[in-house]
Amino acid sequence: MRIRFYNARVLAMDADMEIRRGEVWVEENRIAYVGPGKASGPGSREGDRKWDREIDLEGNLLMPGFVNAHTHSAMTFLRSFADDLPLQEWLGQQVFPMEAKLTGEDIYELSRLAILEYLSGGITANFDMYFQPDMIAKASVDCGFRTVLVSSLNNFTSSLEAMEEEYQRLNHYDEKICYHLGFHAEYTTSEELLRGVAALAEKYHAPVYTHNSETRREVEECIGRHGMTPTAYLDSLGLFLYGGGGYHCVYMTDEDIRIFQERGLSAVTNPGSNMKLASGVARISDMMRAGINLAVGTDGPASNNCLDMFREMFLVTGLAKLREEDAAAVPAEAVLRMAVSGGAKALGLADCGCLAAGKLADLIVIDLQQPNMQPVNHPVKNLVYSGSKQNVKLTMVNGQILYEDGRFFVGTEPGEIYENANRIIRRMVGK
Amino acid sequence: MRIRFYNARVLAMDADMEIRRGEVWVEENRIAYVGPGKASGPGSREGDRKWDREIDLEGNLLMPGFVNAHTHSAMTFLRSFADDLPLQEWLGQQVFPMEAKLTGEDIYELSRLAILEYLSGGITANFDMYFQPDMIAKASVDCGFRTVLVSSLNNFTSSLEAMEEEYQRLNHYDEKICYHLGFHAEYTTSEELLRGVAALAEKYHAPVYTHNSETRREVEECIGRHGMTPTAYLDSLGLFLYGGGGYHCVYMTDEDIRIFQERGLSAVTNPGSNMKLASGVARISDMMRAGINLAVGTDGPASNNCLDMFREMFLVTGLAKLREEDAAAVPAEAVLRMAVSGGAKALGLADCGCLAAGKLADLIVIDLQQPNMQPVNHPVKNLVYSGSKQNVKLTMVNGQILYEDGRFFVGTEPGEIYENANRIIRRMVGK
Repeated sequence: MRIRFYNARVLAMDADMEIRRGEVWVEENRIAYVGPGKASGPGSREGDRKWDREIDLEGNLLMPGFVNAHTHSAMTFLRSFADDLPLQEWLGQQVFPMEAKLTGEDIYELSRLAILEYLSGGITANFDMYFQPDMIAKASVDCGFRTVLVSSLNNFTSSLEAMEEEYQRLNHYDEKICYHLGFHAEYTTSEELLRGVAALAEKYHAPVYTHNSETRREVEECIGRHGMTPTAYLDSLGLFLYGGGGYHCVYMTDEDIRIFQERGLSAVTNPGSNMKLASGVARISDMMRAGINLAVGTDGPASNNCLDMFREMFLVTGLAKLREEDAAAVPAEAVLRMAVSGGAKALGLADCGCLAAGKLADLIVIDLQQPNMQPVNHPVKNLVYSGSKQNVKLTMVNGQILYEDGRFFVGTEPGEIYENANRIIRRMVGK
Repeated sequence: MRIRFYNARVLAMDADMEIRRGEVWVEENRIAYVGPGKASGPGSREGDRKWDREIDLEGNLLMPGFVNAHTHSAMTFLRSFADDLPLQEWLGQQVFPMEAKLTGEDIYELSRLAILEYLSGGITANFDMYFQPDMIAKASVDCGFRTVLVSSLNNFTSSLEAMEEEYQRLNHYDEKICYHLGFHAEYTTSEELLRGVAALAEKYHAPVYTHNSETRREVEECIGRHGMTPTAYLDSLGLFLYGGGGYHCVYMTDEDIRIFQERGLSAVTNPGSNMKLASGVARISDMMRAGINLAVGTDGPASNNCLDMFREMFLVTGLAKLREEDAAAVPAEAVLRMAVSGGAKALGLADCGCLAAGKLADLIVIDLQQPNMQPVNHPVKNLVYSGSKQNVKLTMVNGQILYEDGRFFVGTEPGEIYENANRIIRRMVGK
């Protein structure tokens, strides 16, 4: 497929955050051209170049898609199932017993539901930690979506052998799928297992990802057990010699930040989840100043509950402003970089996160012809401070348009996916 | 016009927060019936009742519209014009000089832009404080929207005489317009003027509204001047003998809360603005426990920057959870009441805020057939935790459908309103 987007405001997010009038050409799954208009109007040709489709953007914004850098997609079934509960009660009495009832087929269906939500909100890739990664990978590929998987290894689920097998196999499963070494968290994973993960990281020269310092209690208990913060303890086991990163990173000490800096780790912030579960507010400005790669994730739909990077972006800067009592903290441009290129970097997607010839065609169109984007004073500030999923007009992943003007093109009718999700939760609660 | 909504999930928000299958009938500007389905399918008749339109909601949610209980609509021109600046610099160097250039015609156009945004987000009434209330009223009436105006009297703008004249006149201008006594804030209004406002409140037995305790500095400076917090000082002048309320209410003492309770004042929270300007987090749970009527507002689009009650609702509960380190703080049901019935009460709109026969037909349809609302575990939790403007399918004000499936019916094409807003800001910056 050759698709030409013209009459666009292009936010390429390559070297700068400038918006330039121009066009973008897509050939198969890659971007072929980003620059000034070369042909004027529909039906025109650049040499003998034939277009399968020419899309007049009428001045709307074309930009790389958002990267949801931490989520548990299949938890859609628990959306609004048990809210407004204390964290331990929520996890122990509601989440864990329900998760135990999930089948592989359920995980496939529930991941597809999350993918619809990603597409409707301009998300073009996700970093997914959940059980049965094969089923998540299949859901993504069937929908045409891009997913980077990460192992959720812990004392109760999976094994080093399974992770290594998945690492080898799922990294060659489909061009839209990658798989990273990882584990659930320090507090759910024995030192023996962690040493095994470190050995695999060494064997494959691979990065390692995990939940890290999400709650004060987690950090305090780790210090109680090991005399070190989770970051320092995990680093002492050699887990981060080839990079990787942490999800949440709310309670980071200066020393933790130094370790992230030294190891080149990404910190993925999840402000919506951290608010809803009353976990705390991350030290975004301090991590920015230390030059750490920052990315943004929604966390899973049971704890957030929506998979909306617009909301997360506002929260990243809004919470930083509150935390530091400084309205100038973490400006919009920095947040947008986290949500796009920072995310791509965290996931190891070198060919995503900006629009340039040769890069993967993961891009979105933002409708500026809506009241919340007017007047057009500053589209980047608008995206972060007043943007909404309502503004997402088109979402393309790997050169395929998967969402346009409210309609999904994922090989299945949304109604069928909704029905299956409702059937799954009804079965679980015995109705 | 007689309109019948059927096959609905109805969240009437009258006595409880239950959702019931059924239908809602609208006749002229009022609700004629809320209850179980009386006729089955399109084309059917209840007696000789004739419908101008019958709308099959296909199981989607029908509920009263959101009430935006504090805003400065016409500030749309400054959306994303000067963000990420310290508060004083933002106000003094950016906002005030630009506002000085506004004409009445500008205020009319810019208010219309805000009204489009309200409609696209399911807001059916607003509480608007800005200069030239006549122009705001005209914008609202021309669009078919409901606006409650409040005077922005201060040492530099308006006068007691103008306010009284507006009070008498604008309360009889149109059935969709009300006008309340008010003033900008303690720190911008002399004691002489405040005593004049108190005299008018006494004369008309009228409530009084103002910005109150938005920042720590405001409260400290008031204590420095008067030895009292803004709430205590204003109350000591007799301003709240007939009720009214405060916008923001971030830095409230126990004594302030007691005064709000005793005087039956409404506290309007503006979490998005308070985050973006790094002002602080209101004591929502404490005010709830004291039985104070709570409402939610977006504040103006220069400080927020979007006029989105979904974002505000998530922030009300999310910030309370963070503040109290308790994931159970301010549950979704309480937030939704604030955003709907609490708002209606704060504005003095006795016939809004719930769906019942005889009430005004200010209602919205929420599309549940979107991924962020699936599975349908708990629509009320969904609205607050994962709802989005994207889910607003229809907005009706005073019996008129003003927004449906992305299209506006406000007597003017949105493109014309956008063009005018861009022209105004270009003129101001001399481009």
